[in-house]
Amino acid sequence: MLTINEQRLLDDLTALSKFGGTTEGGVSRLAMSVEDVEARLWFRHQSDSAGLRVHQDGAGNLSAILPSSLPDAKTLLVGSHLDTVPNGGRFDGALGVVAALEVARTLREANIELPFHLEVINFTDEEGTVLGLLGSRALTGQISAEDLQHPRCDTHTMTQGMQRLGISPETILSSKRVPESLVAFIEVHIEQGTRLEQSSTDIGLVTSIVGIRSHWLNFVGLAAHAGTMPMQKRADALWGASAFVQQARTLVMEKFTPGVVNVGQVHVIPGAFNIVPAEARLALEFRHGTESQMDTMEKEILTLAKTVANDYSLSLSIESANQVVAASLDNRVIHAIERAAQNLELKNMRLLSFAGHDTQAMSSLIPSAMFFVPSVEGISHHPQEYTHPKDCVNAGNVLLHSVLELAEGFSQ
Amino acid sequence: MLTINEQRLLDDLTALSKFGGTTEGGVSRLAMSVEDVEARLWFRHQSDSAGLRVHQDGAGNLSAILPSSLPDAKTLLVGSHLDTVPNGGRFDGALGVVAALEVARTLREANIELPFHLEVINFTDEEGTVLGLLGSRALTGQISAEDLQHPRCDTHTMTQGMQRLGISPETILSSKRVPESLVAFIEVHIEQGTRLEQSSTDIGLVTSIVGIRSHWLNFVGLAAHAGTMPMQKRADALWGASAFVQQARTLVMEKFTPGVVNVGQVHVIPGAFNIVPAEARLALEFRHGTESQMDTMEKEILTLAKTVANDYSLSLSIESANQVVAASLDNRVIHAIERAAQNLELKNMRLLSFAGHDTQAMSSLIPSAMFFVPSVEGISHHPQEYTHPKDCVNAGNVLLHSVLELAEGFSQ
Repeated sequence: MLTINEQRLLDDLTALSKFGGTTEGGVSRLAMSVEDVEARLWFRHQSDSAGLRVHQDGAGNLSAILPSSLPDAKTLLVGSHLDTVPNGGRFDGALGVVAALEVARTLREANIELPFHLEVINFTDEEGTVLGLLGSRALTGQISAEDLQHPRCDTHTMTQGMQRLGISPETILSSKRVPESLVAFIEVHIEQGTRLEQSSTDIGLVTSIVGIRSHWLNFVGLAAHAGTMPMQKRADALWGASAFVQQARTLVMEKFTPGVVNVGQVHVIPGAFNIVPAEARLALEFRHGTESQMDTMEKEILTLAKTVANDYSLSLSIESANQVVAASLDNRVIHAIERAAQNLELKNMRLLSFAGHDTQAMSSLIPSAMFFVPSVEGISHHPQEYTHPKDCVNAGNVLLHSVLELAEGFSQ
Repeated sequence: MLTINEQRLLDDLTALSKFGGTTEGGVSRLAMSVEDVEARLWFRHQSDSAGLRVHQDGAGNLSAILPSSLPDAKTLLVGSHLDTVPNGGRFDGALGVVAALEVARTLREANIELPFHLEVINFTDEEGTVLGLLGSRALTGQISAEDLQHPRCDTHTMTQGMQRLGISPETILSSKRVPESLVAFIEVHIEQGTRLEQSSTDIGLVTSIVGIRSHWLNFVGLAAHAGTMPMQKRADALWGASAFVQQARTLVMEKFTPGVVNVGQVHVIPGAFNIVPAEARLALEFRHGTESQMDTMEKEILTLAKTVANDYSLSLSIESANQVVAASLDNRVIHAIERAAQNLELKNMRLLSFAGHDTQAMSSLIPSAMFFVPSVEGISHHPQEYTHPKDCVNAGNVLLHSVLELAEGFSQ
């Protein structure tokens, strides 16, 4: 059975970790920074050496292509991102790019003829230094001129960064690709959680990248003297808010697992020891795998909030704060990955991804899927982020055989 | 049966409300302000006109005395305070001083010989513009030089105010009186609550001024990604904190009524939609009538907090923030007031005072008690504060007959 070159993959990961390496053992390789450019040069060099064709699009997405000799071949995209958060880890994103590169090299060395071009892609700015998922959203036509006028960093940093990559807002906006030219997209990534590790599972087949909805819930009662106002006459906003926190927790755990809910902030007004709270403003967020589950969950959670407000003689106002649409991944691609894992006799399970990834953007355009390998203790975005060598190797081999599975399916 | 001059009392209240009167119909007569000095001059004038002897002590407490002709007579103190909060009401404090003044005038006009000197007293700064209960605490020896170095206002305002009254830190510290010279203290005050109004009761016999204890409770868990961390593995500080708010409410309502508990502020750390709360810091305050009840209540509330923290895998730290000792009032004086109300055929009930009053300080030195008359809708510290004329008149008559009851008891 064909396998990747294990040592070469591990050496690549080590080499890559030097670009932006921090004293704590982490990596600061922010998108479009000098360190990012150095890593990109290294990627170009490795790809050239392997006989792959290098190409950069208008959004700075950097690809190494193993061409098919078939006429009118479409392209299978595989990859992830080389950028990191400040003082992040050595595996988040990097493993997905290095594994994809190693797959292309292995296939070329084995002289395997694919029915599609294989394009190893490093997406620009997954972490959102300038704009979250910039590269994959540009490729799928989800970035507007308006978005580029509101970067997360300052305008000067953005302009300077774009100049380093040789791109501009105009080229970004014109880098959309047509789905007809593409077969599918596969990404491998570290889990950044503990589900695989705790269940001794090698491979996590992501069925969906969760949707995220957040709201401000403002429970409003009446301020009162905390001594003279008898308890049974109070309209204490915090009573309602705290009952909601309790009951929303129970509701989601009992009815929506593995969906999750969080109340991450509370503002109490006026906020003094001796004043009964007039207002309690909660930052509510919940996540689940499909938009239909999200709709049901939202309805039940907000109905609960209204019921609780009513129980405590409070009024309630709800203000939507943010929304990320759930991305259901492609069953055919998931099956290909599953068969690859089975062929390699690797224990696998299906799960949701609770964090965002380039696959989320890609799934809006073409059949896409991703899989996870274990993260030690789930630590991520941190210098201590770690994935065992055997799991890095599994990432490469499962990706290799997923490509072969798709190739086989494609030929039939 | 002897009664006060109703119209004179009501006219006095109206006259007094002009000093510091606001456009909204309220009163801004902050302690030691120009308006306070004007009200004090008016009080002197009214007392002089009524043939009472005026005296001011080193703390600015201003008295009108109806002397007894008995040799070695002690003094019965009756009164309240003329100062207000900014844009406060016309009755809080003022009614107690005006009623006491009217009682002295009535007794003098009726040529009633008392077995004690009757001293109508206006305490300085009950509301705490400079230092809460300044006058009554100075009279009872509860103010230190240290206290006067940490006024609630700035030092310049304090110095200027003292100059207006002709007092100084030195005179304040030397204005303590000896209990041997005093019989008792009685105060009448508006309820600032709705218990009397809602039960159609004329007179509230205060059995105790509640103790107040406050603590910061810090529930500490672990910050986590609100997506990737499964709910059953979270140590969410807000889960514990919200369960505590709920259960403390139930505990106190079921077991400690009329005692009360309040959580008036919540600080969540780090405080974002997508981060599971690591810390939830609660401002807890509770009040009850006796120190023994306060001890039991504190023990049960803090035990509950520990149990809840444990239930949610959190740690808990408790930091004491403030403490006001409960003041149990004097049974003999309460009985005198009760008999007065009964003789006047006024419906009365016993209750706790959940707000602080000069009686609280006075009770530490001599037998003291106070009674309430109804406040319309419990509104207080507000221009709309109101007490019906009949209840103001009841305040005067019950105070009058309480003095007579004590006089009778004193002679026996």
